[in-house]
Amino acid sequence: MLQFGKIAIVGAGNVAYTLCKVLKNKGINPCCVFVRNPVSAEKMSQELGVETVSDYEKVLKSDFLIIAVRDDEIFEVASHLVDYKGLAVHTSGTKPSEVLNRIERYGVFYPLYTFSKEREISFDDVPLLIYANSPEDLIRLNGFADKLSSKVEYCDDEQRKAIHLAAVFVSNFTNVMLGVGEKILKDNGLTLDLMRPLVTEMIQKSFEISSDNALTGPARRGDLQTIRDHEEMLANSPKELEIYKVLTNYILEKYHNNEKL
Amino acid sequence: MLQFGKIAIVGAGNVAYTLCKVLKNKGINPCCVFVRNPVSAEKMSQELGVETVSDYEKVLKSDFLIIAVRDDEIFEVASHLVDYKGLAVHTSGTKPSEVLNRIERYGVFYPLYTFSKEREISFDDVPLLIYANSPEDLIRLNGFADKLSSKVEYCDDEQRKAIHLAAVFVSNFTNVMLGVGEKILKDNGLTLDLMRPLVTEMIQKSFEISSDNALTGPARRGDLQTIRDHEEMLANSPKELEIYKVLTNYILEKYHNNEKL
Repeated sequence: MLQFGKIAIVGAGNVAYTLCKVLKNKGINPCCVFVRNPVSAEKMSQELGVETVSDYEKVLKSDFLIIAVRDDEIFEVASHLVDYKGLAVHTSGTKPSEVLNRIERYGVFYPLYTFSKEREISFDDVPLLIYANSPEDLIRLNGFADKLSSKVEYCDDEQRKAIHLAAVFVSNFTNVMLGVGEKILKDNGLTLDLMRPLVTEMIQKSFEISSDNALTGPARRGDLQTIRDHEEMLANSPKELEIYKVLTNYILEKYHNNEKL
Repeated sequence: MLQFGKIAIVGAGNVAYTLCKVLKNKGINPCCVFVRNPVSAEKMSQELGVETVSDYEKVLKSDFLIIAVRDDEIFEVASHLVDYKGLAVHTSGTKPSEVLNRIERYGVFYPLYTFSKEREISFDDVPLLIYANSPEDLIRLNGFADKLSSKVEYCDDEQRKAIHLAAVFVSNFTNVMLGVGEKILKDNGLTLDLMRPLVTEMIQKSFEISSDNALTGPARRGDLQTIRDHEEMLANSPKELEIYKVLTNYILEKYHNNEKL
């Protein structure tokens, strides 16, 4: 039994869902999951075998509470928990820890990852960025996180916000690039799968030799003829053309700023 | 001995360099590599143990020639080869095959990949997209490519151009996203390495459940407050802010077009 005592979760989104799965896989059973929407509650209880509740009574009796809801719902959830005696943490990358400061003991448990319900994942390598408003609870939170991942790090509000912003670029926006590529291929009777070796190598080498050293392609070479050809090919896709232009100019300015091409 | 006979290469860039390495690893020795710049020639001959030449005499005696130079140099190289009797292919993703049409037998050998000299790679999984102006040479080229990769595909000029454009998005622009993330992290005393599990998972799930299903993050959720916070954090980085805005709007329009957020 975890020294944490009873663990409760609030939420039914991707993070709450994945957290439940990961905890259960580690043999840690949440005492309850608060889910407002009855359909989501039913689904979650059936799929994950957890007890879902729709009032805060049982939640208030837990020792550790993970609030895994949308950023703009955290404050509202906290308003039901002013008498909570356990440690309450939220999982947001952007919200300051103080959004929970009407609760006596609070903190943050931010898994730096991307969650989709249909993915089977473990937290083994996922950076868990933690914060608590007292050293005692920080140690407790660290002990909990250590059971789930080998990469637990302390992170204050300021750093966490920067990390979340960086994550939007490297994860969400990278996904958009794959989406645009997929669209272009589809229009030509091809599938994204063709790109897998290329993408895998580009990602790997960006991490291993730095993103600057890894960059190739027409803009990196300053090949204006190919850039013009590409822009012409995108003439009927104004949104994708705008992305192409902004990113191509970004590369040209960075690597060819003082050159006459 | 390959039924191709003598293989020559023109070029000293990333593609030519990698091709030489890959061929040598397969026990196929190019008879010569044409390199104009004497410093590059010396470097390549020392590092890869290939014979470099600076005139076309020996090149013209080869049976198969891979022209791996910058797109805008292919035409000039071809002008020296009007009497060439072997099969000449270029490696460009964008140039039409006809840029070589002053040579009797020509084609394209386009490895869909990203090349950097410092990377040790094999072509085993790299899609090799081939084209030749006669069925006989297409079969020959196919036989050659089959020795290097398990993914050889026929591809005409039109499809190849579309694939190359898609590759710019999924590879070069994805790299830019990692670069911006790296910059934000660096400014906060952190390194890109922290993002590796997140990026790896986002890429994997984009391929496995499609990029649309894999997308998460503030724009996907329609979380305008977080978007405003991010834009404020980027106020002193106008270029990165522009990228943020364009891509965020792209996601918002795609997934929240008719919603009032």
